[in-house]
Amino acid sequence: MFIARSEYDRGINTFSPEGRLFQVEYSLEAIKLGSTAIGITTSSGTVLGVEKRITSSLLETSSVEKVVEIDRHIGCAMSGLQADARSMIEHARVTSQSHVFHYAEPIGVESCTQAICDLALRFGESASGEEEESIMSRPFGVALLIAGYDEEGPSLYHAEPSGTFYRYDAKAIGSGSEGAQAELQSSYHKSLTLQEAEELVLKTLKQVMEEKLDANNVQLASVTKDKGFRVYGDEEMKACVGRIEGDS
Amino acid sequence: MFIARSEYDRGINTFSPEGRLFQVEYSLEAIKLGSTAIGITTSSGTVLGVEKRITSSLLETSSVEKVVEIDRHIGCAMSGLQADARSMIEHARVTSQSHVFHYAEPIGVESCTQAICDLALRFGESASGEEEESIMSRPFGVALLIAGYDEEGPSLYHAEPSGTFYRYDAKAIGSGSEGAQAELQSSYHKSLTLQEAEELVLKTLKQVMEEKLDANNVQLASVTKDKGFRVYGDEEMKACVGRIEGDS
Amino acid sequence: MFIARSEYDRGINTFSPEGRLFQVEYSLEAIKLGSTAIGITTSSGTVLGVEKRITSSLLETSSVEKVVEIDRHIGCAMSGLQADARSMIEHARVTSQSHVFHYAEPIGVESCTQAICDLALRFGESASGEEEESIMSRPFGVALLIAGYDEEGPSLYHAEPSGTFYRYDAKAIGSGSEGAQAELQSSYHKSLTLQEAEELVLKTLKQVMEEKLDANNVQLASVTKDKGFRVYGDEEMKACVGRIEGDS
Amino acid sequence: MFIARSEYDRGINTFSPEGRLFQVEYSLEAIKLGSTAIGITTSSGTVLGVEKRITSSLLETSSVEKVVEIDRHIGCAMSGLQADARSMIEHARVTSQSHVFHYAEPIGVESCTQAICDLALRFGESASGEEEESIMSRPFGVALLIAGYDEEGPSLYHAEPSGTFYRYDAKAIGSGSEGAQAELQSSYHKSLTLQEAEELVLKTLKQVMEEKLDANNVQLASVTKDKGFRVYGDEEMKACVGRIEGDS
Amino acid sequence: MFIARSEYDRGINTFSPEGRLFQVEYSLEAIKLGSTAIGITTSSGTVLGVEKRITSSLLETSSVEKVVEIDRHIGCAMSGLQADARSMIEHARVTSQSHVFHYAEPIGVESCTQAICDLALRFGESASGEEEESIMSRPFGVALLIAGYDEEGPSLYHAEPSGTFYRYDAKAIGSGSEGAQAELQSSYHKSLTLQEAEELVLKTLKQVMEEKLDANNVQLASVTKDKGFRVYGDEEMKACVGRIEGDS
Amino acid sequence: MFIARSEYDRGINTFSPEGRLFQVEYSLEAIKLGSTAIGITTSSGTVLGVEKRITSSLLETSSVEKVVEIDRHIGCAMSGLQADARSMIEHARVTSQSHVFHYAEPIGVESCTQAICDLALRFGESASGEEEESIMSRPFGVALLIAGYDEEGPSLYHAEPSGTFYRYDAKAIGSGSEGAQAELQSSYHKSLTLQEAEELVLKTLKQVMEEKLDANNVQLASVTKDKGFRVYGDEEMKACVGRIEGDS
Amino acid sequence: MFIARSEYDRGINTFSPEGRLFQVEYSLEAIKLGSTAIGITTSSGTVLGVEKRITSSLLETSSVEKVVEIDRHIGCAMSGLQADARSMIEHARVTSQSHVFHYAEPIGVESCTQAICDLALRFGESASGEEEESIMSRPFGVALLIAGYDEEGPSLYHAEPSGTFYRYDAKAIGSGSEGAQAELQSSYHKSLTLQEAEELVLKTLKQVMEEKLDANNVQLASVTKDKGFRVYGDEEMKACVGRIEGDS
Repeated sequence: MFIARSEYDRGINTFSPEGRLFQVEYSLEAIKLGSTAIGITTSSGTVLGVEKRITSSLLETSSVEKVVEIDRHIGCAMSGLQADARSMIEHARVTSQSHVFHYAEPIGVESCTQAICDLALRFGESASGEEEESIMSRPFGVALLIAGYDEEGPSLYHAEPSGTFYRYDAKAIGSGSEGAQAELQSSYHKSLTLQEAEELVLKTLKQVMEEKLDANNVQLASVTKDKGFRVYGDEEMKACVGRIEGDS
Repeated sequence: MFIARSEYDRGINTFSPEGRLFQVEYSLEAIKLGSTAIGITTSSGTVLGVEKRITSSLLETSSVEKVVEIDRHIGCAMSGLQADARSMIEHARVTSQSHVFHYAEPIGVESCTQAICDLALRFGESASGEEEESIMSRPFGVALLIAGYDEEGPSLYHAEPSGTFYRYDAKAIGSGSEGAQAELQSSYHKSLTLQEAEELVLKTLKQVMEEKLDANNVQLASVTKDKGFRVYGDEEMKACVGRIEGDS
Repeated sequence: MFIARSEYDRGINTFSPEGRLFQVEYSLEAIKLGSTAIGITTSSGTVLGVEKRITSSLLETSSVEKVVEIDRHIGCAMSGLQADARSMIEHARVTSQSHVFHYAEPIGVESCTQAICDLALRFGESASGEEEESIMSRPFGVALLIAGYDEEGPSLYHAEPSGTFYRYDAKAIGSGSEGAQAELQSSYHKSLTLQEAEELVLKTLKQVMEEKLDANNVQLASVTKDKGFRVYGDEEMKACVGRIEGDS
Repeated sequence: MFIARSEYDRGINTFSPEGRLFQVEYSLEAIKLGSTAIGITTSSGTVLGVEKRITSSLLETSSVEKVVEIDRHIGCAMSGLQADARSMIEHARVTSQSHVFHYAEPIGVESCTQAICDLALRFGESASGEEEESIMSRPFGVALLIAGYDEEGPSLYHAEPSGTFYRYDAKAIGSGSEGAQAELQSSYHKSLTLQEAEELVLKTLKQVMEEKLDANNVQLASVTKDKGFRVYGDEEMKACVGRIEGDS
Repeated sequence: MFIARSEYDRGINTFSPEGRLFQVEYSLEAIKLGSTAIGITTSSGTVLGVEKRITSSLLETSSVEKVVEIDRHIGCAMSGLQADARSMIEHARVTSQSHVFHYAEPIGVESCTQAICDLALRFGESASGEEEESIMSRPFGVALLIAGYDEEGPSLYHAEPSGTFYRYDAKAIGSGSEGAQAELQSSYHKSLTLQEAEELVLKTLKQVMEEKLDANNVQLASVTKDKGFRVYGDEEMKACVGRIEGDS
Repeated sequence: MFIARSEYDRGINTFSPEGRLFQVEYSLEAIKLGSTAIGITTSSGTVLGVEKRITSSLLETSSVEKVVEIDRHIGCAMSGLQADARSMIEHARVTSQSHVFHYAEPIGVESCTQAICDLALRFGESASGEEEESIMSRPFGVALLIAGYDEEGPSLYHAEPSGTFYRYDAKAIGSGSEGAQAELQSSYHKSLTLQEAEELVLKTLKQVMEEKLDANNVQLASVTKDKGFRVYGDEEMKACVGRIEGDS
Repeated sequence: MFIARSEYDRGINTFSPEGRLFQVEYSLEAIKLGSTAIGITTSSGTVLGVEKRITSSLLETSSVEKVVEIDRHIGCAMSGLQADARSMIEHARVTSQSHVFHYAEPIGVESCTQAICDLALRFGESASGEEEESIMSRPFGVALLIAGYDEEGPSLYHAEPSGTFYRYDAKAIGSGSEGAQAELQSSYHKSLTLQEAEELVLKTLKQVMEEKLDANNVQLASVTKDKGFRVYGDEEMKACVGRIEGDS
């Protein structure tokens, strides 16, 4: 019954009688409105790919940053509210730098992911005077795919507004995630090369994007042992897109 | 259904079941009530133009400041609530000065834009004792076009109440933004000279303004490498307006 | 529909679906209940005139202060809630004194106006421990006409509860403002002398006041380069009122 | 319509659509339930008179203090909630003492009144950590007649819960204020002697009090240059009451 | 109309349209549910008497403390919520001790009463960081009869949840207060001896108590110049009760 | 009328029109759902007995602690929410230790009880920055029987969520308290030996418990001058239970 | 009646008229949606077993951590919201480390459990400035089985969102807890070996899991005197699962 439910979902952080947290569930809807992002791990590194929604030909496509660096060896792709993502990523960057400063070694990918999720969990708390950072009064409306390369090799994590995270071999988020995840499930195998992963990301995005995929409305990035995190340049993007065009 | 929706849009910072943030969407309506502002980037600099609503002949038109300096090399045009804009711009100015003080070089245009958007995102937070600045209890009711010239050349950013920002070649905001953006889309090309950009701004404003455009009810400004940000004087305004009058 | 609207106007600082801030709009109604105040700028100075509502013959008319000094060179006329005005004016006085102390020169009239408007914008914020001044939990229910004389000559500003301000040649506020502004619009010209401005203020007040205007129920003040801000004494008031009586 | 109105008057400090502050208006009702108090100024001093409601013959009439000293040269009569009055008067006393300490001269009567009204205005603010005094969560439910004698001679001020104050020659507050003010309006003249003022206060109280006036259920006080503020003793009260009894 | 009223009485500290503070009025109802307490002043001292409700024969009657010491020369009887009373009395004791420490003389009975009432007034305030004591979020649900002996001789004060206090010759509070006050009104005279006062207290309690009065379910105390405050022991209680039993 | 009442009981700490505090009354219901506890005082010490609800044979009965030590000479039995009890008891322990530290003597049993009740009263307060302990946002849902032995001999106190406490010769709390208290009322006499008290506690528990009483589902403890507080071991429990089994 | 109840369960920490805390009860529902976890104690150590829900073949099963180390000698299994569990466990780890630092000995298992439950109880408190950790605005949506080995041998505790904890010989939590607990009840006996306990955990999980149990979708861990807490590796898991497969 709608009216009864609404009595619970107005409270930003209360359980419904069925044990559900509605504001967290609703924030997932914000993510379903977001552009699609995909991550795939291979033995030599992880590939991230994102759809860029170019709403106007006058928009600088380079300013639509959906995949960004966190540290030299960690990057992430996002889907959902841009401004919320910026907060989380800034938090991750500060945590990473602080880790290097205190322990003189790069932060682990899982530790970095956990720091993001701990922040996500804290919405709705009343701010005490001791906080270094400000606290959201609602859940973050963004999901992240965090890719990195550390002592334990390449890895890919999925972080949700609820503060939950899991590690995946391949994962899709955003409006096209349902179809994309099904594609990944059937096409992914452990022995993919990095180049094959790039192609699988692009092909999967192509399937779920409303607009025709080209070198401007998608963006790839990768994390490898040697080069760390890097966003692909225009030339490289064109080459990659060309490879899958040639295929079809 | 209206009644059900209203249960969500009363909360200043909560998600609706569809994942929407109503207060942020409503603040965009405040901007649609505002005067039109337009920005156009060229290779030699960026031009900003704004409509000034002169509600009374006794009003000093110079006090209707819709385009202002942030730093020597950055300026912005605004649409929406004047007082909210002042807060954001003051924040941007302090951030710029602080950047020069700490790093002995001018702030980048994107960094400056991000500082504004970070502030915008923070509405509804409870104030902790450590804050240097006060926090709005609602979203800002203003959109900004931020124009600047830094190491990477001229640039134009559009900042929204949601804290989202994108870079544009040409962008219109405010009550006439829909028609103006369509005009920009069809007339803009990368090889515009600064003077052509001035003319395109004025012609576009002329199309969407309710009152007849003259040298008093519009204002141009530009950011170029040599002169930085500057608002055009009365003589210059008359000359510019004269040029497009001659055209028609 | 009334019931739906009321869901928004109860929140002290939230946007309605149309992008309006109802509490700010309602505070303007408080001003429309206030006594009329008028300001006129001339090349040699600015004249302020206010209606004094004398509700009882036992009331000391001198204690009905509707036009007051902010600094030697700045004064203001008010319409709306007396106690709210006192807070704003006290803030303006402290800001002025602080400016002299820090910069060893009198504050500019626009800076002073902006300080008042910045305070007006801040209602509804939660107080942080660092605040020097207290913060209103609702918008100020008062409008001000701020007159001053600084390096740039004489000026007149109108400051609203929303924190918006504009500079005017001539401006009326309060319950009679509509009729008065129309009169000013038709009678004002740039070459008015200070004495002609005094007479225009009084004649306009006479038109819009419910009671018969006399030397007791109106008050004039002026800001000029030589004498700064001063409220007219009883004799001077009688002389001024006599001049317009003689006219009619 | 009652239901609609109630949506506004529940908010302790919000404007109604007509620009009214209901909680402040309701606090005036609390005063209309209070006992009557009257003040009259003469050239040689000010007289205050109050009705004392003696609800039981076992009540010590001297403990019904409705007229009290603020400083040697300032006193006040009150109508409304006793405990609220005590807070305001304590604030006035501290302000007065502090003034003497800082400036080595007695506080002016108007300054003292303004300090009381500034406190009255602040209800509903959230307390910041810096406050020396506590802040009421509702308007004060009390009105004061403040009588004093300073460099500018004798004076009488009326302070309201809204924080508004005006100076009067003669003023009545409380449940009988309407009838009493009409009487004062017709009988007051500037050349009253202090003794005539005493008699006018008593005669006016006699008219509006429900119980028969005697030396126990009214109290007079005066502020004069020589004697400062003093509450009349039992003998003096009997003499004063006897004088008006003889008259009638 | 009940529904409309409830909109006001839910707010803990707001005025109703008639100028009433419902939460304070409701707290008086809590006192009407309490046990009866009576105080009577004589020239040689003040007597306090309270009903002790012994709900079980296993209850230690000595632990039902309804009349307690505040200082050597001040005591009080209470009616209403026991835990609330304890807070107020603790506050009174601390204030008394602090007074002796600062001024090297015992606190006056009125000052002590005022300290209690100042605390009572403060419910509903938001706690600032500077508070030494905690602040109730509702009015105290207790009334006190404060008896003392100071430089001005014996005295008896009645303090209410509203923070109002008056001095009485004789006063009753609690569930039987109406009948008891009527009895006191008719039987009290200024020349009562302390022993006669003891008897009047007991006789009056006997009339209004539901249970049969005996030495266990009432308690007497007195404040005299020589002995200060003291609670009567078991033998003394039996003797007093015996005296009135003999009478009837 | 139910709907009207609910308007009051939602407020955590407000009076209803009848002067009732509903949240406190509802917390008493939580205690009525709790297991039964009984205390009996004799001249040589106090016995406490509690029912242990063993919901599963896999539950370690020793971890169902319903009777615990506060200090060497004070212990308590509880009924209601376990976690709330832990908070209160921790507070009591800290207060006791602090007393020894400051005064070099054990805390009195009444002082200890009062410290618990002062904490109970404070629910709903807003936390000031100075608090050493955290403050509950609702009343404690637990009642305690506090038994001790100090300079004044053995004693037994009953502390309620309202912050009220009384001393009893014998008292029962929890779901079976009604029947148990009736039994105590008829069987208790002042000359009981400690062993007779143990038996009376067990017999009374046996009557009111749903499950058959055995050495596992009840627990005895005592406070005596020589041994202080001690919980009976398994052997002693079997012996005690055996004694009453032999009886029946 | 549903509507009436909802008035209580919206308040995060208030009693219903029946003395219930609905938000705590609803948080138990969140746990019933969680995966099943089981703990069994033997004389030589405690075994923990958890179901891992593998929603996608691309999910790294090792990142589904449902059983984790708290200290060398304490571990726990969880059911409910992952992010909430992380907060509680982090708190437990810090408490354990702090204990070693202060007392130079490992924390007791019961003390560690109590620290977790004290945190759980504190939801809904307003944060004071002194807090080291942040406070949840709702109950934790997670239950824990805490297994450890200290001076008193092996032990197993069950901690609930209400802050209640008990010690068990064997306990199941989560969606399959009802069936699992029944199985444990009938099959558990005190003389189980560690290996038999491993098998009983797996057999019980097998009965209640929807998916077919294999070495990937369950996880065992144990705490023994010699090895402390350890999560079983892949080989060991396969061996254990093989043992029960062989059985059936």
